[in-house]
Amino acid sequence: MRRANAQLQSDRRAEILAAAERCFARSGFHQTSMQEICAEAGMSPGNLYRYFASKEALITGIVEANRAEAAASFIAVQQAPDFFAGLAALARHHLVERPVEKVAICAEVMAESRRTAEINELCYRGEQEIRQGLVDMLSHAAKNGEIDRDLDLEGAANVLMTLGDGISWRRSVDPSFDPETVLPMILHMVKCLLTEFHGPEKKEQSR
Amino acid sequence: MRRANAQLQSDRRAEILAAAERCFARSGFHQTSMQEICAEAGMSPGNLYRYFASKEALITGIVEANRAEAAASFIAVQQAPDFFAGLAALARHHLVERPVEKVAICAEVMAESRRTAEINELCYRGEQEIRQGLVDMLSHAAKNGEIDRDLDLEGAANVLMTLGDGISWRRSVDPSFDPETVLPMILHMVKCLLTEFHGPEKKEQSR
Repeated sequence: MRRANAQLQSDRRAEILAAAERCFARSGFHQTSMQEICAEAGMSPGNLYRYFASKEALITGIVEANRAEAAASFIAVQQAPDFFAGLAALARHHLVERPVEKVAICAEVMAESRRTAEINELCYRGEQEIRQGLVDMLSHAAKNGEIDRDLDLEGAANVLMTLGDGISWRRSVDPSFDPETVLPMILHMVKCLLTEFHGPEKKEQSR
Repeated sequence: MRRANAQLQSDRRAEILAAAERCFARSGFHQTSMQEICAEAGMSPGNLYRYFASKEALITGIVEANRAEAAASFIAVQQAPDFFAGLAALARHHLVERPVEKVAICAEVMAESRRTAEINELCYRGEQEIRQGLVDMLSHAAKNGEIDRDLDLEGAANVLMTLGDGISWRRSVDPSFDPETVLPMILHMVKCLLTEFHGPEKKEQSR
C-alpha cells in the first residue's frame, strides 16, 4: 500500500512537471502564473502546492528530471553492442523524437538561468553532470578502441553538447526545421571527429 | 553637410542599438524598459524616440543589423583565396570574437520570437536570408571544386546554422565555455561534412 502510494505521488509529480513544461513553453517562465499551471494540470492550488511550492521548485524539478534522463541515456550507449549505433539511437531519441515543448522549455530555462542565480547554479550543476556523463561514455569507447584513443574527451564532450544545443535551439525557434534531415550529416561529422581528428599519422603512432 | 548629417544619424542609431543590446542581454526583453535604454544610451526619451519608437522597433533594428553583417561575411568567404581559410576566419569572427552580449541578445530575440508573431516573422525572414547566403557561399565553393559537388547544400546550410546556434547558445549560458577550444574540432567536422559526406566512391563517380 505504501509502495502504491509512493508510485502515485511520483506519477503525480511527473504530470505536474509535464503541465508546467507546456505552460512555460507556451507563455515563457515569467509570463506563466502558478494558477495557469494548476489549470493545465487539472489540480487545485492547495493540492499542487503540496508537490511544488513555487515556480522555482517546478523549474528545479524539470532540470532534475532532464538530468536523470540524460544520465540514463549515456549509460545505454555504453551498453550498446556498437558505440556508433548506440550514439545514433541516443541522438534520435534526444534530438528528433523528443516533443518540441520539452525542447522549448530547455531554451526557456537556460535563458532564465542567465538572470537568476539559483537557476543558474542548478543548470550549471546539471551541465557539469551531463558533460561528465559524456566524457565517461567517450572514455569507455576509447578504451574499447571504438574511437580515437588520443582524443581530448572534454573537448569532444563540449562539441557534442554544442551540437545538441544547436539542434534543440533550431527546433524550438524554427518550426520548418526537421532534425531528421540533418541527423545523418551530424552523425557523419561526429564520427569524423571521434575517429579522425588527429589525422591518420597521429593515429598510427598511438596504436 | 547633408552627408555628414546622415553619417551622424547612422552612428547615433548604431549607438542606441548597442545600448539596447546591452540592456536586453542584462535584463531580458520583457524586463527592460525604454527608460533604461535611454539611460544606457545617455539620451532623453524625446531624442531616442525620434530614432526608435518602441522596443519592437529596437529589436527590428538589431535583427536587421545582424542580417546585414551576416550577408557581408558570407560574401567575404566567397572572395577569400581559399574557401576553408575563409570559413575559418568567418567562424572565428562570428563565434569567438563577437562580444558575449551580442550573442546573448540573439538568444533573447529568438526566445521572444517563439511568442510574438511580429518578431517571429522578422526572425524567420532573417533566417531565410542567412540560409540563402550560406547556400550561395557553398554553391560557389562547390562550383570551384573546393567542396563536394553532390552535397545537399540546403542540408549543409542547416547544419552550419545548427553549429553556429549551438556555439552561440553555449557561450551565452555557460561563462566557462571557451569557443576557441572547440573551434579546431568544429572546423575539422565541417570539412569532413563538406568534402567526405558521400564517401570516396560517390565522389569518384561525380568528378
